[in-house]
Amino acid sequence: MKTDTIAAIATAMGNAGIGIIRVSGEESIEIVDLIYRNNKNERKLKNFKSHTIHYGFIYDGNEVVDEVMVSIMKKPNSFTAEDTVEINCHGGVVVLNRILDMIVKNGARLAEPGEFTKRAFLNGRIDLSRAEAVMDIISSKNEMALKNSMKHLGGSIYEKIKDLREDIIYEIAFIESALDDPEHISLDGYADKLYIKNENLINEVNKLLLSAENGKIIKEGIKTVIVGKPNAGKSSLLNVLVGEEKAIVTDIAGTTRDILEENINIGGISLKMIDTAGIRFTEDIIEKIGVEKAKKYVEDADLIVYVVDSSVPLDENDFEIMKMIENRKSIILFNKSDLDASISFEDLMDKIRNSIIIKTSTKENTGIDNFEAAIKKLFFKGEIFLDDEVMITNLRHKEALGDTLFSLNQVKKSIENKMPEDFFSIDLISAYASLGKIIGEEIEEDLVNEIFSKFCMGK
Amino acid sequence: MKTDTIAAIATAMGNAGIGIIRVSGEESIEIVDLIYRNNKNERKLKNFKSHTIHYGFIYDGNEVVDEVMVSIMKKPNSFTAEDTVEINCHGGVVVLNRILDMIVKNGARLAEPGEFTKRAFLNGRIDLSRAEAVMDIISSKNEMALKNSMKHLGGSIYEKIKDLREDIIYEIAFIESALDDPEHISLDGYADKLYIKNENLINEVNKLLLSAENGKIIKEGIKTVIVGKPNAGKSSLLNVLVGEEKAIVTDIAGTTRDILEENINIGGISLKMIDTAGIRFTEDIIEKIGVEKAKKYVEDADLIVYVVDSSVPLDENDFEIMKMIENRKSIILFNKSDLDASISFEDLMDKIRNSIIIKTSTKENTGIDNFEAAIKKLFFKGEIFLDDEVMITNLRHKEALGDTLFSLNQVKKSIENKMPEDFFSIDLISAYASLGKIIGEEIEEDLVNEIFSKFCMGK
Repeated sequence: MKTDTIAAIATAMGNAGIGIIRVSGEESIEIVDLIYRNNKNERKLKNFKSHTIHYGFIYDGNEVVDEVMVSIMKKPNSFTAEDTVEINCHGGVVVLNRILDMIVKNGARLAEPGEFTKRAFLNGRIDLSRAEAVMDIISSKNEMALKNSMKHLGGSIYEKIKDLREDIIYEIAFIESALDDPEHISLDGYADKLYIKNENLINEVNKLLLSAENGKIIKEGIKTVIVGKPNAGKSSLLNVLVGEEKAIVTDIAGTTRDILEENINIGGISLKMIDTAGIRFTEDIIEKIGVEKAKKYVEDADLIVYVVDSSVPLDENDFEIMKMIENRKSIILFNKSDLDASISFEDLMDKIRNSIIIKTSTKENTGIDNFEAAIKKLFFKGEIFLDDEVMITNLRHKEALGDTLFSLNQVKKSIENKMPEDFFSIDLISAYASLGKIIGEEIEEDLVNEIFSKFCMGK
Repeated sequence: MKTDTIAAIATAMGNAGIGIIRVSGEESIEIVDLIYRNNKNERKLKNFKSHTIHYGFIYDGNEVVDEVMVSIMKKPNSFTAEDTVEINCHGGVVVLNRILDMIVKNGARLAEPGEFTKRAFLNGRIDLSRAEAVMDIISSKNEMALKNSMKHLGGSIYEKIKDLREDIIYEIAFIESALDDPEHISLDGYADKLYIKNENLINEVNKLLLSAENGKIIKEGIKTVIVGKPNAGKSSLLNVLVGEEKAIVTDIAGTTRDILEENINIGGISLKMIDTAGIRFTEDIIEKIGVEKAKKYVEDADLIVYVVDSSVPLDENDFEIMKMIENRKSIILFNKSDLDASISFEDLMDKIRNSIIIKTSTKENTGIDNFEAAIKKLFFKGEIFLDDEVMITNLRHKEALGDTLFSLNQVKKSIENKMPEDFFSIDLISAYASLGKIIGEEIEEDLVNEIFSKFCMGK
């Protein structure tokens, strides 16, 4: 079947040096050839070899619309595994829209969001987990997330899931064969063997599911709330951290920056930092609302940073805060360590036993590196990345793994209850199918469309 | 002299399918080769031919940072006329920054804004007027502006200025030769001949200066103010226009969209539309402020659109507005033409003699095409573009032309006052130099730096 040819602006919108329009499909070269001419006024993109670049102009009739470089990538050696043309033009919004419009008028159709990647999947160049990794790479908020997504694109999830499925299909095949041909294949003692194998499978799936906790944090950042009395140095902390981060990442589109929230990268991890109003227990109604709000953020947070002003004595407000953060992941900053202390560090350590306490001076910018190390210790046991570990970051994958685990636990129960072997088989088939969803091998067309519709335009 | 190698992100920031990092300079290929490997784990960009594309990976040590396509363009056949490498990677902010950072660590330096184009100019590939056209193309707000900038990039300004300068240098050379060698070259009757030639030059420069009026409008849009009594249909007009425009251009970065202002494209022209509060003359202080503000906008505007509610009789408010728009470029909309009229169209035409009056119904979306035609008529005599006309859109060019005109007028005066020929020569040399500034032939290094610093990063 001849597929239609799709086109989209593949770079971000905004004024920039370069913009790219990507065209993919059987007629892509033919269509671009209708509007392209080289500096000898010739049209002959078709004659060019794959993976070559050609200087020239986009023409609308006799009007030159832009000076461009056209790249030709012939199937199957392109992103979509189809013939692909990329027009590298000036990166203005008007010029990009104009050229895209001309391509559509000449026979291409506007691509849906994610449709290029969908074609790469449908054409068998990448599995579904790799396709999803493409989107994760693009939207990654920090270097850890990028690194993890690159591993997914490299096929780490695919390989892991394929191995698990091979183990399962072997058992299914064995059971079915035995049930079909009981005279030659015996199931005596099989249940015990399967039980052990099934326990291994459960362990593997559980490990993947557990990785999703860190995976979520790597992908979405650590929800962090800063608490402390008024004037303890909460906002200075945020400023110090933002200042350091600004030197690393200059601009993240879509970053929420209301009064309270900042996205910060520390040592490759994203922190969604919420600076709360100073917590002071009071009868004033308006202040009370602020404090209640802060409490709510604390309940929701992955991490609480409690900034203590070490230059003034602890009071009932501090004790209230200490109560709030009991049994939570928290880091205490013994701040204003540049001033004379009114609190003893040891005394504070004694009062708060389950937290890490770090001496800092946000004024003199000291102790921030220890703060960074403490975060890594709390969330990643000091090591952010186990290089051979597959980390799940995608909610869809997590759900499919949850379904897999459910089916494997059913197998376990059936064995324990000494059910007949075909019961094992049914649940093993379910587990196999659930795992298949992750890599796109047992997945309905509707779901494929839904997954790719979350992608951005031009990918 | 060996120039250093520069690098920048050349696409807009934001999450998108593709992002490009551009590297230019003698060591560009060498530097990218340090972080690139193909899928056989080889580094050999150097061996590849110019204008070829190579699939592979960016590596930081043994870590894969991204899957990329690398384009090689060898000097002089690149944008900068230097060896250039473009890394086509995934369009995420983190991945783009990470790769750029690696390139800088491996020996390139961050490019300044506009530095790639500056190199194209300094390497003699394009003159200054073409270099400035590159920026205008990128930032063009509508198709007319794009079209005009493409003509500039094609060299229309350069050719025009070169012709004028050739005419002037001929006269300078003639005068200087005659003064050097009076025995063989006679200046008898020369002043009269020069007078005629000088008049022609003045005309040509004047024509270019006059084009700057339309040029400014094409580049920056027509500052339009909508006035009228409350409930005349001003906001509906804006909604109708915005609705039509949204179908054409979906997203312009940096578009000001406060409560009052909308940028609209009508038939290829941009209108910066300001919707004012209804004008009603009142003693209420707050309302008075609104009305004063509207009056101020009217004073500033290129075009005033006066929306008349034809279903209610004219009153003193209308007469005030009519006074305000006297002797100004204005279009009157005889609105609510779908309702029974309380005003006669002819009567209104009689009252307002210097404006175009158009029957519209913003409710039924009629008359809008006539409105569009009227704008073109007012600003471009119906024809937006004279294809052989050079239109000046750059303020720097306008100033240089103003200086040229001044010098040519000095020549005129000197001839009229029968001054000696070396007086002519001095001012002709000034005119020649002023024109040279436009194409970058008589321009100081500081000014070059200033011009290119206005460019966006990566170009």
